[in-house]
Amino acid sequence: MDADFRGRDIISIRDFNRGEIEFILDKALEMRQGHAPLLAGRILGLLFFEPSTRTRLSFEVAMKRLGGDVVGFSDSQLTSITKGESLSDTIKTVEAYTDIIVIRHSREGAARLAAEASKKPVINAGDGPNQHPTQTLLDLFTIRKEFGRLDVKVTLMGDLKYGRTVHSLAYALAMFDAEIDLVSPPGLEMPEEVITDLKAMGAEVSVSNRLDISKAQVLYVTRIQKERFPDPEEYAKVRGAYKLTLDSLKDARSDLIILHPLPRVQEIASEIDATKHAKYFDQVANGVPVRMAVLALVTGAIE
Amino acid sequence: MDADFRGRDIISIRDFNRGEIEFILDKALEMRQGHAPLLAGRILGLLFFEPSTRTRLSFEVAMKRLGGDVVGFSDSQLTSITKGESLSDTIKTVEAYTDIIVIRHSREGAARLAAEASKKPVINAGDGPNQHPTQTLLDLFTIRKEFGRLDVKVTLMGDLKYGRTVHSLAYALAMFDAEIDLVSPPGLEMPEEVITDLKAMGAEVSVSNRLDISKAQVLYVTRIQKERFPDPEEYAKVRGAYKLTLDSLKDARSDLIILHPLPRVQEIASEIDATKHAKYFDQVANGVPVRMAVLALVTGAIE
Amino acid sequence: MDADFRGRDIISIRDFNRGEIEFILDKALEMRQGHAPLLAGRILGLLFFEPSTRTRLSFEVAMKRLGGDVVGFSDSQLTSITKGESLSDTIKTVEAYTDIIVIRHSREGAARLAAEASKKPVINAGDGPNQHPTQTLLDLFTIRKEFGRLDVKVTLMGDLKYGRTVHSLAYALAMFDAEIDLVSPPGLEMPEEVITDLKAMGAEVSVSNRLDISKAQVLYVTRIQKERFPDPEEYAKVRGAYKLTLDSLKDARSDLIILHPLPRVQEIASEIDATKHAKYFDQVANGVPVRMAVLALVTGAIE
Repeated sequence: MDADFRGRDIISIRDFNRGEIEFILDKALEMRQGHAPLLAGRILGLLFFEPSTRTRLSFEVAMKRLGGDVVGFSDSQLTSITKGESLSDTIKTVEAYTDIIVIRHSREGAARLAAEASKKPVINAGDGPNQHPTQTLLDLFTIRKEFGRLDVKVTLMGDLKYGRTVHSLAYALAMFDAEIDLVSPPGLEMPEEVITDLKAMGAEVSVSNRLDISKAQVLYVTRIQKERFPDPEEYAKVRGAYKLTLDSLKDARSDLIILHPLPRVQEIASEIDATKHAKYFDQVANGVPVRMAVLALVTGAIE
Repeated sequence: MDADFRGRDIISIRDFNRGEIEFILDKALEMRQGHAPLLAGRILGLLFFEPSTRTRLSFEVAMKRLGGDVVGFSDSQLTSITKGESLSDTIKTVEAYTDIIVIRHSREGAARLAAEASKKPVINAGDGPNQHPTQTLLDLFTIRKEFGRLDVKVTLMGDLKYGRTVHSLAYALAMFDAEIDLVSPPGLEMPEEVITDLKAMGAEVSVSNRLDISKAQVLYVTRIQKERFPDPEEYAKVRGAYKLTLDSLKDARSDLIILHPLPRVQEIASEIDATKHAKYFDQVANGVPVRMAVLALVTGAIE
Repeated sequence: MDADFRGRDIISIRDFNRGEIEFILDKALEMRQGHAPLLAGRILGLLFFEPSTRTRLSFEVAMKRLGGDVVGFSDSQLTSITKGESLSDTIKTVEAYTDIIVIRHSREGAARLAAEASKKPVINAGDGPNQHPTQTLLDLFTIRKEFGRLDVKVTLMGDLKYGRTVHSLAYALAMFDAEIDLVSPPGLEMPEEVITDLKAMGAEVSVSNRLDISKAQVLYVTRIQKERFPDPEEYAKVRGAYKLTLDSLKDARSDLIILHPLPRVQEIASEIDATKHAKYFDQVANGVPVRMAVLALVTGAIE
C-alpha cells in the first residue's frame, strides 16, 4: 500500500478508499503493540466547541502516549468566539501555535471549513449531525480485532435517522462487503438516500422495526434521544422496546459482539456488561491506538 | 514495613493503619528531597465533578513532577454526564485511557463506587461531606515535619460539625495518640459519634466553645460557612468570635503552628501570615510531595 | 547588555528601558531559530481569571516548546475564588506548586498585586484596561522582523481611547523614536495625557479622524467595540468608516504591513488576508518565541 497521509485532513470516512482504511487499521494495531515517542516535541491543538469527554480524552491520551503535547479548549465559552471571531480566524491562530488540529463543532461542515483555513492537518472529531471519522475507524478496528475481517453480519439498532455514527459506519461496512441489518423504531429509520447508496455500493441491506438477534455477529446499538419524540409516552414505549437485556440475548450467536458508541443511557442493561458479548468498553479503549495511528500518519511521523 | 500499595484505592484515611500512614509519610519526605521521573509514560485521569483549585492543581503538579501526564476535566458541565451517563460508565471509559484515576465528587460514596467500577487504582480527592484522605495525609505530614512526631497537642477550631477535613484528621490523630481539643461555636460541635469513636481509640479529647490557645502545639482552623446559619446576625457574631488575630496569639506557645486547609475567608487575619506560627502555606506546598508519594505507591512505581 | 531578568516580574512595558526591550527581542529571535528544552521539569501556573484563547494558548505553547509543563485554570468559575478566597491567597497557593506564574485578570492592578504576593516571577497577561506587556513585545518583534528596526512610521487606528494594546505600544514606539499617527473615530481619541507623555518622550505624533494610508509603514488596527457607543446607529457609521478593504490600500506604500492584536470582528476585510501587507497571523505566531524568551529569562534558564 502506498498511501501518503502526511499533511492530509481527516474529515469524512468517505474520503478514504478500502485500502486506505485497512492501512490505518494496520497502523493502529501496531500502535496497540507498542510505539516510540513519535510525536515528541509536537503540539496538538484541540478545539472542542462543544463538550465531549470520550473523544476529547482519547485524542489527548493518544497524543500524549506518542510523547506529544496538547493545548486547546473544551468549551467555546472560554474562547474569543464569544467576542465574535470567525471560525476561520480562530483556526488560523491555532495553526500558528500547533502542528495539528482536532476540531469538534456543532455545525455541519465546520470541520471542512477549518481544513480549508488551515495549512496544518485538521481532524474532524464530530461536526454536528455530519461526520466523525475516527469513531468509524475505531468501530471497524474493534470488529476486525474480534473477527479478523470486516465482511460480517452487522445489525445497527436504535436511532438510525439522526445518528451520525451509524451513517458513517454503514458506508464503511458497505465498502467492506458486510451484511447490514437496520433495526429502528418507526420514524427513526435510516434515511432512504443512505440505503440507496449502500445498495449501490453492493451491500446486502435489510430493514426492520424488530430485532432478530439470531444471525447478528455484531450488534451495534445507539442511543434513542428523548428530544426526537414530541410525545413523552411515545418515547417511553420505544425506549422499552429497544432496550437490550440478558433476556434479549437468549437466541444470540455464541460469537456475537455488542458495540455502542457511548454514552449509553438505558439502551443496554448493565447486566450485559459481564457477558462475553459486551465489547463496548474495549471499543472505547480502541479509540486510543486508532487515534494514535491517525495522528502519527497525518503528521508524517510514520508512513 | 511491608505494606503493598500497588493497585490499592485510596478512599478513606480509615482504610489505613498507623504503620501504613507512617510509611506513606516517609515516602513523601523522600519525594520532597528529590526523585526520578518515576511515572514517565503514565497518565492520570483527573475527574473533578466539582471545582477545586488547590486539590486539582496539586495532584496535577504531583503527577507532572514525577514525569507523568494528566487528562480529565475540572467541571462536570463539560462531560457526557450532562447526557445522562452513569458514574460507573464514565469511570470505565476513563479507566480505558489512563493508569490511575483521581476523583472529586459532591456525592458521599462516589469515590468508593468509582473504585468498584475501576480495575485501575482510584484516589478520592473529596466526596462531598465524606472523606478527603490525601488532605489528612498532608496535614499529618506538616505536623510531623514541624514536630518530628504526631503525638502532640492539637486544637481543632471552627465548624467541626460539617467539616470533612477535621473529622478525618481527628481520627488519624487519635490513631497517633495526639491530645485533641475541639473548639467550635455552639451548634457546630463535633458529632457525638465521632467523639465516642475517638475516645474508644484511646484519645484524650476535650470539648469547648472557647479557644484556650496557651497549650496548643497545633491550632487547626477551618472555615465557618455562612450557609450553616439560618440567621445572618448569628453568623456575624460567631465569625467574629472565632476569628484569629495577632491579639489571639499573645498567650500562644512559642512552638505553636497554625494550619488551615484553605481557602480561608476571614478566619485568620492576614497579619498572622508573617509570624513564625503561620504554616498554612507550607501545608499547601506539602500537598505535592504527599500526593507524589501516593501516586507512586499505588501505581507500583515505588514500594 | 547586562540585563538581569532572573526572578523579575513582567507587569508593564514601561518597567523596561530601550536596551532591555531590545535584549528580549534578540532572545526571542534566537528562540525562533531553535532552542534546547530549557525549562524541562519546570511548571508554569496559568491563572486566567477571564477567558482568552490567543494569549493563553501561546503562553502554554511557549512553555511546552521549552520542555516545561503548565497547570492552572482558564475561567475563575472553576476556582476557589467562588468561595471568597483573596487573590493574594490564590497566588500564594499557586506559587507553592509552580516555578512561574502568568496571570490575566479583569481588574486593573491585579497583576502588580499578584507580583507582590509571590516570591516567584509573575507575568502580566493583561489586567483589564491596564497593561499587557508581552503583547507589546510581540508587536515590536513583528515590526523589527519586517523592517529590521523600530524607528518607522506607524499609524495606530481604531479605538485609541480604551484599547490597552495601543497605549502600551505607543509608549514603546516613542521609546524607539517611531513616528506615530493616531487615527480614531471622534470620541475614541487617544487620551490627552498619553499624547503629552509621548511628546515628552520626544516622539513625533499626529492626530486625525481620517486615515491617510500613503505614508504608513505599519498600520496597526484595533477593534472598535459596540459597547462603547450608546447609539447603535452611531456605531454602525463609525464601524463602516474605519473598516479596511482592498480599496483602502490603493495608495499604500509597497512595504506597508498591517497588524492587529486580534480577534478582529470586521475591521479588516478578509480579502486583505491574501495580500503581502497582511501580517496579523505572523504577528500571532510571533507570540510564541517572544513568550519563550520572557519565560526563559525570568526563570533564569537563559541570561
